[in-house]
Amino acid sequence: MRVTCLDMEGVLTPEIWINVAEATGIEALRLTTRDISDYDELMRHRLSILDANKLGIAAIQEVIGQMQPLPGAAEFIAWLRERSQVIVLSDTFYQFAAPLISQLDYPTLFCHNLVLDGDKIVGYQLRQPNSKQRAVEALHALNFRVIAAGDSYNDTAMLGAADRGILVNPPQNVVAEFPQFPVVHGFEALKTVWEEADLELK
Amino acid sequence: MRVTCLDMEGVLTPEIWINVAEATGIEALRLTTRDISDYDELMRHRLSILDANKLGIAAIQEVIGQMQPLPGAAEFIAWLRERSQVIVLSDTFYQFAAPLISQLDYPTLFCHNLVLDGDKIVGYQLRQPNSKQRAVEALHALNFRVIAAGDSYNDTAMLGAADRGILVNPPQNVVAEFPQFPVVHGFEALKTVWEEADLELK
Repeated sequence: MRVTCLDMEGVLTPEIWINVAEATGIEALRLTTRDISDYDELMRHRLSILDANKLGIAAIQEVIGQMQPLPGAAEFIAWLRERSQVIVLSDTFYQFAAPLISQLDYPTLFCHNLVLDGDKIVGYQLRQPNSKQRAVEALHALNFRVIAAGDSYNDTAMLGAADRGILVNPPQNVVAEFPQFPVVHGFEALKTVWEEADLELK
Repeated sequence: MRVTCLDMEGVLTPEIWINVAEATGIEALRLTTRDISDYDELMRHRLSILDANKLGIAAIQEVIGQMQPLPGAAEFIAWLRERSQVIVLSDTFYQFAAPLISQLDYPTLFCHNLVLDGDKIVGYQLRQPNSKQRAVEALHALNFRVIAAGDSYNDTAMLGAADRGILVNPPQNVVAEFPQFPVVHGFEALKTVWEEADLELK
């Protein structure tokens, strides 16, 4: 009995913060953990920029609502749900993911929460540290075998904890640093490697 | 951050074995744990009846494929997915649930597996004992709060483990034995009690 755990941004959807930076013209929102390595510092920086620009949750959700999943993502999710239970494991926030996850027909999503005061984003609440890896471990405790797919550093603990881990559309430095995981680009290649992993786990 | 755990048979769909008994005319398939209290004995009995009647998985799936979710179930699931993560926790088998879960637009389902030899059902594999309660505990370990809804004895441990438990369409003996859980009939009443529970957990 199997669950497939999928990262969201980079695998099923574009990167949310980059799109918000482009749509709002606020270049500073492009900063990532490559620029500010401490996640909490990065998030407080982002929230202070939103506040200085009077951008509340409604405005951000409107921007995100213009985004679409990656081409083929909805079809891939539909294909996968006929073959496996699916849980999307993301480090985004429910309030950001909502406009995108609805376009994927609401797969189950485990992510984090923003703290709102009316329209203002005043903070954020991580559900737990290492949340993706912990989710895979919880599924193992329920006697599921897990196939996981993700694209970046924050997915590698999840891929390592899973019975089969797959790198999807990864940057070259992640490929080089984690040679143990098969690498695919695009949903057709992901389907093929997923089917091989599924057969091996049978 | 919340997950809603829903029982399947009796809450979202009719009882599968009863429908298979009616469609095949095999009255002995109506037996439940009220008649044979040992689940393993009951299942071995059922599988031997299927075998004696040369009923394989394809024939059973065809019968189940004629079934439909309870009226309003698909709409309820769609309503709930916009408000909460949803996981269906069932003691049925993936091979039986498939034709019904597709009509509910594939909510995530945690249940059990049949062991097949070609078309023949040769056994079954419970994912783990107390699987519904264990799933709620795993979600708690991931820092989710859980609202659970079910209709019968095999749901009460799940309802007790959840932050809020709701009895949906229960038989009178379950209502009498578990007075701690609110009782609703039908999806409109379930929505109302769910919204109250959701507010309380905020």
